[in-house]
Amino acid sequence: MNNTFSYKQLFDFVCNIFNKIGCSSEHAVLAAEVLLSADLRGVDSHGVARLSGYIRLWEAKRINATPNIRIIHETPSTAVIDGDAGLGLVVAPFAMQVAIEKAEKVGTGWVSVKNSNHYGIAGYHAMMALKHKMIGMSMTNASALVAPTFSVEKMLGTNPIAVAIPANEEPAFVADFATTTASNGKLEILQRKNQEAPLGWVQNAEGNASTDANALKNGGSMLPLGGDKEHGSHKGYSLGSIVDIFSAVLSGASYGPWAPPFPAYVAMPQNMPGEGLGHFFGAMRVDAFRPAEEFEAHMDNWIKRFRAAKPAAGHEKVLIPGDIEREMELIRRKEGIPLFDSVVKDLKGVGQKLGVEFE
Amino acid sequence: MNNTFSYKQLFDFVCNIFNKIGCSSEHAVLAAEVLLSADLRGVDSHGVARLSGYIRLWEAKRINATPNIRIIHETPSTAVIDGDAGLGLVVAPFAMQVAIEKAEKVGTGWVSVKNSNHYGIAGYHAMMALKHKMIGMSMTNASALVAPTFSVEKMLGTNPIAVAIPANEEPAFVADFATTTASNGKLEILQRKNQEAPLGWVQNAEGNASTDANALKNGGSMLPLGGDKEHGSHKGYSLGSIVDIFSAVLSGASYGPWAPPFPAYVAMPQNMPGEGLGHFFGAMRVDAFRPAEEFEAHMDNWIKRFRAAKPAAGHEKVLIPGDIEREMELIRRKEGIPLFDSVVKDLKGVGQKLGVEFE
Repeated sequence: MNNTFSYKQLFDFVCNIFNKIGCSSEHAVLAAEVLLSADLRGVDSHGVARLSGYIRLWEAKRINATPNIRIIHETPSTAVIDGDAGLGLVVAPFAMQVAIEKAEKVGTGWVSVKNSNHYGIAGYHAMMALKHKMIGMSMTNASALVAPTFSVEKMLGTNPIAVAIPANEEPAFVADFATTTASNGKLEILQRKNQEAPLGWVQNAEGNASTDANALKNGGSMLPLGGDKEHGSHKGYSLGSIVDIFSAVLSGASYGPWAPPFPAYVAMPQNMPGEGLGHFFGAMRVDAFRPAEEFEAHMDNWIKRFRAAKPAAGHEKVLIPGDIEREMELIRRKEGIPLFDSVVKDLKGVGQKLGVEFE
Repeated sequence: MNNTFSYKQLFDFVCNIFNKIGCSSEHAVLAAEVLLSADLRGVDSHGVARLSGYIRLWEAKRINATPNIRIIHETPSTAVIDGDAGLGLVVAPFAMQVAIEKAEKVGTGWVSVKNSNHYGIAGYHAMMALKHKMIGMSMTNASALVAPTFSVEKMLGTNPIAVAIPANEEPAFVADFATTTASNGKLEILQRKNQEAPLGWVQNAEGNASTDANALKNGGSMLPLGGDKEHGSHKGYSLGSIVDIFSAVLSGASYGPWAPPFPAYVAMPQNMPGEGLGHFFGAMRVDAFRPAEEFEAHMDNWIKRFRAAKPAAGHEKVLIPGDIEREMELIRRKEGIPLFDSVVKDLKGVGQKLGVEFE
């Protein structure tokens, strides 16, 4: 069996699946594009591997395939959006578009979103700003897996932050990272391979450092970027908290340990203080600060200078945030997207359930 | 010799010193307040211990005591400010005030600053937003001490980020941290005590992990938050880069390895691409998103829930960002501010030079 699929094959399949659950054609196309941007960029944990998870949430009536996504509060530079329990994959681009339109008018736009669901990779939404010569920002809260510094209780999601900054000759600077030492996706790879995790990624139920990649199943938790206090975990905890507050407390979504869990089989938390998952988006027109050509020329200079930084022994070159993902996208658009057997099986299951053939 | 001084003693002395170099009374008072907020909050590396450094920069004509700080570009939600080589301690509050005024009008305000100098602690400026029921943000670039992931070249400063978020019954959430594993201040304490640094704080000239707290003097560099790639140093590198770009590329300040060095005896870099140091500030009115009482009530709930998170074995409680500094300020306002002998000697030297008695 060939486990590599063309972008087109996967796109058509995912699109059909979203159509089958009742999404409009426009939403199905957008959701497929956002979801597959993860596979193209090599963030395999956030792409088609999650499709069956979204479908289970729809079956559990936690995802609304025909949402009325709307602005419920706004000022010239801000908005709050109610996602109406829609797919985060369509709610998020809607919200980012609002941020971009506000930036067109008053220089910057900032949008907080409630009542949404998992929105794919943070970077997709931030990168929407680039073609408008804007800096884009995107963050989201998520199911609680991470313990704050000095705690053993899962209180925060892996709460990613993405920032996309345009240049001219050079490709854009695109940072997109979980505010934990390692993403949950990387941890899942170790679990699948039955390998140990480096110290600093997870702790056990007592709060001691652990190399058990399955620690979470035994009451353990993921650790904020930094790992432990001595290595700055209070900074990762602060970052994850800021993402949670901007995404959910500003908007009226459910925050902290009450964030709705992604797996549909996990019961919803009791006494949720808000609605659904939350996101936060920002767009800043670069010419709201200085002429765009001037900014872009200096970004080119910044990127070139950092690329030329002296490499450490054993390393070839210094990377700019976004380099790896951009190169991966070039390869996968040409050579196709490889999928694990388990993911292929999963997709076939989704296809059978909804009457869409896979392959 | 008693090495503990009242806030009033230090305030009067610092104020007199700034007056002596030609600052207006208003600027001297403000600069003293900003500088000493670091000593009050326990960030000893950024308070009076730096006074002699500022004076040496003034002697080297790199600080202008009578700056014409002005807006050189603006939109309804943004501004760029030229600090005219003034003390960052006065340029930064001016810029944050502009951000706050823009937020009053259009919901948020975002200000990038060029041609400035060291601005004290990031948290002071972010906290200015709190009494306006706004979220405050503050960041700055700084002398290059930090190597990007896979590099041995010092390309970034410790580039701190501060975010202050108001609550109601609970004290505000105030995160304020360098985007390195440990701040330079913590490293200096180890150097003074002749102790080793934990792995992950610094690397040697070859780019290998090192416990030598003096590694920087021997061609080594500080490490981005995360320490090494396996522990997420590319995330700390991304954060430090974002701070550098927002502070200096957006404004026209000098960025990356060209950031002006704080020690006056270090020669300025060649071919600087901008003017002086850069900062970036943000203010977001919480009622630009939802009613302020509603937001504050949920922040109280957020803070209470995180405080109640189950502590790990050996720890008493989970802290909220800002707790340690706020408690330190209460103690030091009452009991005074303890200074190292070397700092007292340094202040006496500054006093003698400028004809102001210390003690």
